[in-house]
Amino acid sequence: MQQSIAEYMQTVGQQARQASQTLASASTKTKNQALMAIHDALEQQQAEVLAANQIDMQNGRANQLDSALLDRLELTPARFAAMLQGLKDVAQLTDPIGEITDLAYRPSGIQIGKMRVPLGVVGMIYESRPNVTLEAASLALKSGNAIILRGGSEALQSNKAIAHAIQLGLQQSGLPETSVQVIETADRAAVGHLITMTEFVDVIVPRGGKGLIERISREARIPVIKHLDGNCHVYVDSQADLDKALAIAFNAKTHRYGVCNAMESLLVHQAVAEQFLPAIAAKYAEKQVELRGCEQTQKILGQQVIAATEEDWYTEYLAPILAVKVIANMDDAIAHINKYGSHHTDAIVTENYTLARQFLARVDSSSVMINASTRFADGFEYGLGAEIGISTDKIHTRGPVGLEGLTSQKWIVLGDGQIRQ
Amino acid sequence: MQQSIAEYMQTVGQQARQASQTLASASTKTKNQALMAIHDALEQQQAEVLAANQIDMQNGRANQLDSALLDRLELTPARFAAMLQGLKDVAQLTDPIGEITDLAYRPSGIQIGKMRVPLGVVGMIYESRPNVTLEAASLALKSGNAIILRGGSEALQSNKAIAHAIQLGLQQSGLPETSVQVIETADRAAVGHLITMTEFVDVIVPRGGKGLIERISREARIPVIKHLDGNCHVYVDSQADLDKALAIAFNAKTHRYGVCNAMESLLVHQAVAEQFLPAIAAKYAEKQVELRGCEQTQKILGQQVIAATEEDWYTEYLAPILAVKVIANMDDAIAHINKYGSHHTDAIVTENYTLARQFLARVDSSSVMINASTRFADGFEYGLGAEIGISTDKIHTRGPVGLEGLTSQKWIVLGDGQIRQ
Repeated sequence: MQQSIAEYMQTVGQQARQASQTLASASTKTKNQALMAIHDALEQQQAEVLAANQIDMQNGRANQLDSALLDRLELTPARFAAMLQGLKDVAQLTDPIGEITDLAYRPSGIQIGKMRVPLGVVGMIYESRPNVTLEAASLALKSGNAIILRGGSEALQSNKAIAHAIQLGLQQSGLPETSVQVIETADRAAVGHLITMTEFVDVIVPRGGKGLIERISREARIPVIKHLDGNCHVYVDSQADLDKALAIAFNAKTHRYGVCNAMESLLVHQAVAEQFLPAIAAKYAEKQVELRGCEQTQKILGQQVIAATEEDWYTEYLAPILAVKVIANMDDAIAHINKYGSHHTDAIVTENYTLARQFLARVDSSSVMINASTRFADGFEYGLGAEIGISTDKIHTRGPVGLEGLTSQKWIVLGDGQIRQ
Repeated sequence: MQQSIAEYMQTVGQQARQASQTLASASTKTKNQALMAIHDALEQQQAEVLAANQIDMQNGRANQLDSALLDRLELTPARFAAMLQGLKDVAQLTDPIGEITDLAYRPSGIQIGKMRVPLGVVGMIYESRPNVTLEAASLALKSGNAIILRGGSEALQSNKAIAHAIQLGLQQSGLPETSVQVIETADRAAVGHLITMTEFVDVIVPRGGKGLIERISREARIPVIKHLDGNCHVYVDSQADLDKALAIAFNAKTHRYGVCNAMESLLVHQAVAEQFLPAIAAKYAEKQVELRGCEQTQKILGQQVIAATEEDWYTEYLAPILAVKVIANMDDAIAHINKYGSHHTDAIVTENYTLARQFLARVDSSSVMINASTRFADGFEYGLGAEIGISTDKIHTRGPVGLEGLTSQKWIVLGDGQIRQ
């Protein structure tokens, strides 16, 4: 008998909701044992998982997927080892669930505080990288959430093989096997159901291209923790230590190009532009970074600089290209960042105490930095231990999202028989 | 020239977004001065506001609004005085904006923490009570947010008069007049625009009947802080102090009937049911509270108890009616609450340490209480100083929402020139 996609997703949702009730009160010990049982099962299933991945790779080549996509799809032995290590790392993270904070007495005599609890059911939608299957599942389990995983069709065999290992581990641990479910259909309608089952799913986390994320945000009936652009800035102030500025501007642009926390626009105060720009341009030239500058930048650096258009200030290049602008003062720098930026990560380089404080307060981005490279905007660097995504929204969670982003807080009231007067 | 409703809302949205940028970095002093200037302006405009309210009342009577609605609509001198006092109270609250927490060093040498920031623009949709106009505006201003207010058409003249006083106050303070905007059209399409202008509005707070809130949740493209049912429970455990249980069960039901934190179902452990139920039933009888019970309840209390149907366990009566169930043990009580309840507020009465801890951890509600009346679930009782609503969602904020619910946290990174290795 053919089950409709709507019925299938309904069943998946119901099972996830049911599993989440067990997970919510699972002890830290049980959750960690489950993570280690998954570790062991995955280790034993290595040959099967890598073989499944090879099928996806062959299909991908046959379907002429581009090389970047194929690279993300491939599970090398090194990547497999990193997946195993990731499980151990998550097992070692502090369990956020049950943490009680701010417990204080009120004049009525009741004592009021907050207790951290899981969100319930996470719906994860992602493309190509099969290791996300394991990362997302492990973070969900540790934070007491059930998870429904919908990977790309190009990674279906890999994801199914990883899911099988996860099931084997969950069986060992006594937690419900339906704590982690992988959608095993290539039918695109599955996503439409997943993002609208408000009764079964509490939050959607999409990871992939901008098109995917925009579509999901538009159509979801469930809150979405989403990450759009990373158009990051470094502003070199007139009172910058120029050695620090050189190191930071070079690192933020060239450490890695295709990442969301790379700098895409460099803003330089006019008082130091003539000294700083030639020095940093020489370093960029070694890395063949293409510069697109405002008029003043062109005046200082000459022919090596292409004229920047209005569009350049908005652009996340994800490539060895940098927009450069000479700025009259910090107010203009902040106005530029808040207008053209994507509210992801922006840094100032300055030794001035008052300007540094103002920049921190007034730049409306998920990470605001003083004298540090934008490349630090990352869950691991921030000490979250792991990262399920980076949020460019302000609601619920902003910036790198670790275990805490998959939790909520409920109020608890401890009394001795108090009644309301 | 006729402006379309779409253009009008677009203009309102743009103005709010622009105002929010000024508000985000306004000092605590400036914001408090604005609140007090609004206080003074409102005091001077008292005659005009009360006259406008009388027009709404006349129209309401002409349109045959029911008496409960007319009661909520009316601005008596006492309510007007409470509005003025509310402004003073909000001015005295601690400013949440700019608070830096969790600042700690990482192995890389950067110091990382979180800074509390406004959400940006709040869209508030509400019915009848004109004092909400002022409460919402004052909480938004104090938390550095711009706000767009859309009250019910029945309160339009009152809301316009209050808005006028707010504008006068804002003019005195130097903050943008567009920090607070009241939608001055009865056209229902305005709401449709307000809840979908993702570029201009960051959060929607609806307050009103369930129909209104469900419609807004369904159609909004912007995150909604919403409050649906309050189907609250008190569970009297076998190890309850029955004097405390009597006081709490009586207070939770009869202190006020039409409020979301009133108890709607009473669960009683079978070991104490024969002792407890007749005692509490005698107290309820004095207040003419109608009891609807399970079979065992009927056996113990006899003819005074109507048989409860499955529907009763789900119902928020908001009336002198109570569902009563005898329960075998705490596990069953928790299962009942998590199944039939609305995840609002639920309490246990017990002297048992282990059961109390388990109840706190396992009941999935925005407020979970031990030995206290559910009536305490309230922003003022919790010490938030004020309340813009009560959230029954888990995302962003749960339970009573005060100033902090209108804020977010951004990451801040303090370095000495660190670059990513």
